[in-house]
Amino acid sequence: MKNPKIVVLGAGYGGLMTVKHLEKKLGSHQAEIILVNKNDYHYETTWLHEASAGTLGPDRVRYDISSVIDRNKVELIKAVALEVKTEENKVILDNGELDYDYLVIALGAEPETFGIKGLKEYALSITNVNAARKIREHIEYQFALYHSEAEKREERLTIVVGGAGFTGIEFLGELVNRIPKLCKEYDIDQKQVRIVCVEAAPMVLPGFDPELVQYATALLESKGVEFRIGTAIKEATPDGIIIGVGEDETEEIKASTVIWAAGVRGNSIIEASGFENMRGRVKVNLDLRAPGHDNVFIIGDCALIINEEANRPYPPTAQIAMQHGEVCAQNIANLVAGSTDLNTFVFDDKGSVCSLGESDAIGIVFGKKVKGKTASFMKKAVDNRALFMIGGPSLVFKKGKFKFF
Amino acid sequence: MKNPKIVVLGAGYGGLMTVKHLEKKLGSHQAEIILVNKNDYHYETTWLHEASAGTLGPDRVRYDISSVIDRNKVELIKAVALEVKTEENKVILDNGELDYDYLVIALGAEPETFGIKGLKEYALSITNVNAARKIREHIEYQFALYHSEAEKREERLTIVVGGAGFTGIEFLGELVNRIPKLCKEYDIDQKQVRIVCVEAAPMVLPGFDPELVQYATALLESKGVEFRIGTAIKEATPDGIIIGVGEDETEEIKASTVIWAAGVRGNSIIEASGFENMRGRVKVNLDLRAPGHDNVFIIGDCALIINEEANRPYPPTAQIAMQHGEVCAQNIANLVAGSTDLNTFVFDDKGSVCSLGESDAIGIVFGKKVKGKTASFMKKAVDNRALFMIGGPSLVFKKGKFKFF
Repeated sequence: MKNPKIVVLGAGYGGLMTVKHLEKKLGSHQAEIILVNKNDYHYETTWLHEASAGTLGPDRVRYDISSVIDRNKVELIKAVALEVKTEENKVILDNGELDYDYLVIALGAEPETFGIKGLKEYALSITNVNAARKIREHIEYQFALYHSEAEKREERLTIVVGGAGFTGIEFLGELVNRIPKLCKEYDIDQKQVRIVCVEAAPMVLPGFDPELVQYATALLESKGVEFRIGTAIKEATPDGIIIGVGEDETEEIKASTVIWAAGVRGNSIIEASGFENMRGRVKVNLDLRAPGHDNVFIIGDCALIINEEANRPYPPTAQIAMQHGEVCAQNIANLVAGSTDLNTFVFDDKGSVCSLGESDAIGIVFGKKVKGKTASFMKKAVDNRALFMIGGPSLVFKKGKFKFF
Repeated sequence: MKNPKIVVLGAGYGGLMTVKHLEKKLGSHQAEIILVNKNDYHYETTWLHEASAGTLGPDRVRYDISSVIDRNKVELIKAVALEVKTEENKVILDNGELDYDYLVIALGAEPETFGIKGLKEYALSITNVNAARKIREHIEYQFALYHSEAEKREERLTIVVGGAGFTGIEFLGELVNRIPKLCKEYDIDQKQVRIVCVEAAPMVLPGFDPELVQYATALLESKGVEFRIGTAIKEATPDGIIIGVGEDETEEIKASTVIWAAGVRGNSIIEASGFENMRGRVKVNLDLRAPGHDNVFIIGDCALIINEEANRPYPPTAQIAMQHGEVCAQNIANLVAGSTDLNTFVFDDKGSVCSLGESDAIGIVFGKKVKGKTASFMKKAVDNRALFMIGGPSLVFKKGKFKFF
């Protein structure tokens, strides 16, 4: 009898966690495990704001997948998954196709531009290592151009961040630390640099504790960030953005750099494959299977699960994706063993820390509010924990974040 | 009686050397010394190829002028000199004007594009710190863009260097060391990077010893440089360059980066001020005064002096500019003292070393051919000597180049 073939799409937090747990639970005589990923490396999505701002080198935010998986048990295929043909139990890749007995879709999120004109063309999104490197270089290039042009263009030194959610705020936290160094390197008076954060919602970091939000906002403002809250971006142009002001007025903010960090959606493979979805996210069963598909699990940012207490979906976070991965691996192991008794995902909230640069942060950890250096220390612990859970102590040692205050 | 007012335009090798020697020779009761410079820093023109390639940080190639001059004796004015009105003994600055009793024009060279179409618009020249920073960022930005674009454009990774003279070759030497690091950082297969050096003359480094030239060419070729010697650039375009092939044919080389390093001319202020000149260089008297002007000295790259032995002009080098500065300062001191007995410039050739990256070089030092690590060591000694002559041991300590083999 042929071993069942388990295909995991995506080596992000959810996918890698699934594979690591499958490795432990299943012997190579019990199942064939295939991991499909676009790159031969995993990157820390939650650290990309640092690579984008230039405060962490792009190589620090990634590691080779082959260094954390058991190559005797797991086959790694470098490919882009384009579509799942569920009726044929088959995945279409950009360089071939792959059949499966069990499928895990762990492909992560994509930026959501809500149909705002020009954003796709003229704004940059913090989506992956390539995008982060491009953002870093784009900003530095504008600074480099400033003094070498005969006609001085102030907009070279204006950076607009669309969105004051987690990603937007964490990026701003890094940016305000990076700017003084860039100014020194490129002989630019820091007063000429303008950083504007535009957020359509009426508040910064919606859902976060108001006292902590106040702390974060005051800190970023003291370092030069202008907040335009309750303000919608109407359009992005080659010259900057157009925002709404009052009822019908608009205002142009000229800026050579526009970062869009205001929203994510599920992966487009979800729509391409015909799953019922809301913005690329599938309302999965609590055993993490797609409704109507007994052998297809959808985890991480593409899975939509309602938090009954708050009566709204859980946000797409690394913490949740990793917990999905654990449950998903267990359920597949059960199915392979012939059991239909599957586990249910229950979110174990370990808290949430939003960094504000190298040595500051805000957060709720074990139900307690933290801010400043304590919170920053906790944030690094959170980041190291993700490394530890996937790659053990050696990965923490290689890629971990340490700071001795 | 009013003290005579000595105005020195430019704080490059020649200008700074003049000021340093004037400081020593004249007390503050004897003369007023004014140094006019565009920036408040001096930069090492001979190191700009390193900053451009990204192998040396932009701050390593410059230092504050105020750290090397005696502020009690010398007034530093930050301004761009636009024109000299010799009949009125006056200099027009971008932010005012300045009269003088003695003037030293030490404003350095500008790129010469020989009327080749598109070069000014589409090529970058290694002219100053701003240009060097821009070149470095431009190249890195192309690498960053490569993987983030859906459609792969090979020309992003093509760099054309126009000119196989000193600057072109030294820049190539740095570039071939930098490329492997950039490739690693941006996940680029080094085979995809193309570096083409186009030179209209029939040889690399004209005037250099053929055996040494052979060594340099072979080294650069082994590191991936394609030489197109005896080949003229006909035009630069937004897409790259058009070169001449054979009699009437042309060929396009698509390249996102074109560096023009094939020629310099004197400063445009020379023409603007009505001095008789050849491409911005004035055939000065041997006492370094402009013919017909008893109180105007022209030194460095704008001075044209014939090397009688070789029957051609001395090249515009830092070594010669510094020797000019010494003679010029002595002559001004003599004039201030009422003497008309002026010294004559005699070139004291200390040799010439062309670097080929961090640890390789070729050169003639004290009449002897050197290459490899020895030459590279000599090159660093040359660079440190310039620092020493202007800023003494403390400047060598702060900005010097040391490598322990």
